[in-house]
Amino acid sequence: MMLKPLGNRVIIKKLEAEEKTASGIVLPTQAKEKPQLAEIVAIGKDVEDVKIGDKVVFKKYVGTEIKVDNEEVTICEMEDILAILE
Amino acid sequence: MMLKPLGNRVIIKKLEAEEKTASGIVLPTQAKEKPQLAEIVAIGKDVEDVKIGDKVVFKKYVGTEIKVDNEEVTICEMEDILAILE
Amino acid sequence: MMLKPLGNRVIIKKLEAEEKTASGIVLPTQAKEKPQLAEIVAIGKDVEDVKIGDKVVFKKYVGTEIKVDNEEVTICEMEDILAILE
Amino acid sequence: MMLKPLGNRVIIKKLEAEEKTASGIVLPTQAKEKPQLAEIVAIGKDVEDVKIGDKVVFKKYVGTEIKVDNEEVTICEMEDILAILE
Amino acid sequence: MMLKPLGNRVIIKKLEAEEKTASGIVLPTQAKEKPQLAEIVAIGKDVEDVKIGDKVVFKKYVGTEIKVDNEEVTICEMEDILAILE
Amino acid sequence: MMLKPLGNRVIIKKLEAEEKTASGIVLPTQAKEKPQLAEIVAIGKDVEDVKIGDKVVFKKYVGTEIKVDNEEVTICEMEDILAILE
Amino acid sequence: MMLKPLGNRVIIKKLEAEEKTASGIVLPTQAKEKPQLAEIVAIGKDVEDVKIGDKVVFKKYVGTEIKVDNEEVTICEMEDILAILE
Repeated sequence: MMLKPLGNRVIIKKLEAEEKTASGIVLPTQAKEKPQLAEIVAIGKDVEDVKIGDKVVFKKYVGTEIKVDNEEVTICEMEDILAILE
Repeated sequence: MMLKPLGNRVIIKKLEAEEKTASGIVLPTQAKEKPQLAEIVAIGKDVEDVKIGDKVVFKKYVGTEIKVDNEEVTICEMEDILAILE
Repeated sequence: MMLKPLGNRVIIKKLEAEEKTASGIVLPTQAKEKPQLAEIVAIGKDVEDVKIGDKVVFKKYVGTEIKVDNEEVTICEMEDILAILE
Repeated sequence: MMLKPLGNRVIIKKLEAEEKTASGIVLPTQAKEKPQLAEIVAIGKDVEDVKIGDKVVFKKYVGTEIKVDNEEVTICEMEDILAILE
Repeated sequence: MMLKPLGNRVIIKKLEAEEKTASGIVLPTQAKEKPQLAEIVAIGKDVEDVKIGDKVVFKKYVGTEIKVDNEEVTICEMEDILAILE
Repeated sequence: MMLKPLGNRVIIKKLEAEEKTASGIVLPTQAKEKPQLAEIVAIGKDVEDVKIGDKVVFKKYVGTEIKVDNEEVTICEMEDILAILE
Repeated sequence: MMLKPLGNRVIIKKLEAEEKTASGIVLPTQAKEKPQLAEIVAIGKDVEDVKIGDKVVFKKYVGTEIKVDNEEVTICEMEDILAILE
């Protein structure tokens, strides 16, 4: 990732489809809603609770969207990241 | 639970029906309102006052809903959990 | 009480009628308003200034109502409890 | 007073008429406005700057009104008490 | 002054006319606006930056007005006092 | 200046025209907008980052305007001063 | 730069076009939106995480615009700077 978030921010790439893990399937509640699953693609120097590659659930309607190498990513605060898929 | 809430958050599964305990029955005040009873299904690493399996009363209209293995759960802050059924 | 409030919260049962004590009678100012007198029925572990059985005056329009064993009770923050009847 | 305010609160009884002291007369600015003079009738355990019997000026539109022994009193925060008559 | 403001409050008496000092004349910007010049007539025990008799500029639309011995005065917070005339 | 601002406040005199310095010209972005350049004419005792005579850029729509010796000046908080011309 | 931002502020010059770096291209998500890429042209004395010349992503609709030597620049708080291009 050519973008380094500042402080306690992370950059996430939203996951369009359902996410299958060893223990099951995670889906946004309603199919038509914006997906709320994402992968962490960059972390600021103060971030402690997630690492690059983590799949996470985030709060809707947060962050700043930007296009990097034709891919949309979102810069958001760590407090907008709610849970990690294990 | 395949989702780990971050920090001081918990994941709850709402209880649809009345809850019977050794000492009595707990019901939301008005039958048509959204139920406010839930079971704790996951807790963040900073959570101290509840544990997995606790039945709790929570504030209405809070948290982020997501579907895990076809079951709706809600991620919310510990401050939205008001009381525990004993 | 089968419900244990968390932290600095209390559970109160609203008193419908006027309250007579050794020293006099306490009434809400206007008869048609919601009564603001209540009895403390449960206290969280951080509560210091009231105990179970205390009769109190509370702020209007606060707290979360729930029905326990067919009786309506209200979970509220200690800061919503204004005064104790002595 | 059979009511004990909690923490940094006081109970005041509004004074309907002008207040005469050794040094002069204090009146609300406009005759038709709610009077803003009151007497302190009870104080919480954290109150330091006023005592029972003090005549005070308070902020308009604050506090919770309740009737005690047929007399209306108001429970308010110490920060709503602006000045003392000397 | 028969009124003692509490804490970090002061009582001011608004000056109706322009104020002439050794070094010049201070006026509110627009003649029709409420005058914003006042004289300090009482100070609370925590007030440090002004003393009784100081002429000051204050923020518009702040404070509680009250009539003392037929003179209107205003009780306001020290943070509403912006500058002193020297 | 016959006015002494309190605390962390400054008094500024707005500059009507463009400002030429050794290194260039500073202008508000749009000619019709209120000018946002000013000269510091007085500083409170807690002010550290500017001194009398400094030319500064300030936030629009802040401060209290007053007329001193027929000149309009503005009293504002240091946090409303954004940058210094060097 | 003839303007020195105060405290934890920076001055940025918005970049109109896409930004090419060794590792790829960064673009605002939607072509018609205001560009959110900028170059740092001045930093306040408390700024730690960016330096002059850094290319950054910033929050939309923040800061104060001013024209310096016919070039529009924006003064904004460090908290409005989200990420650095590497």
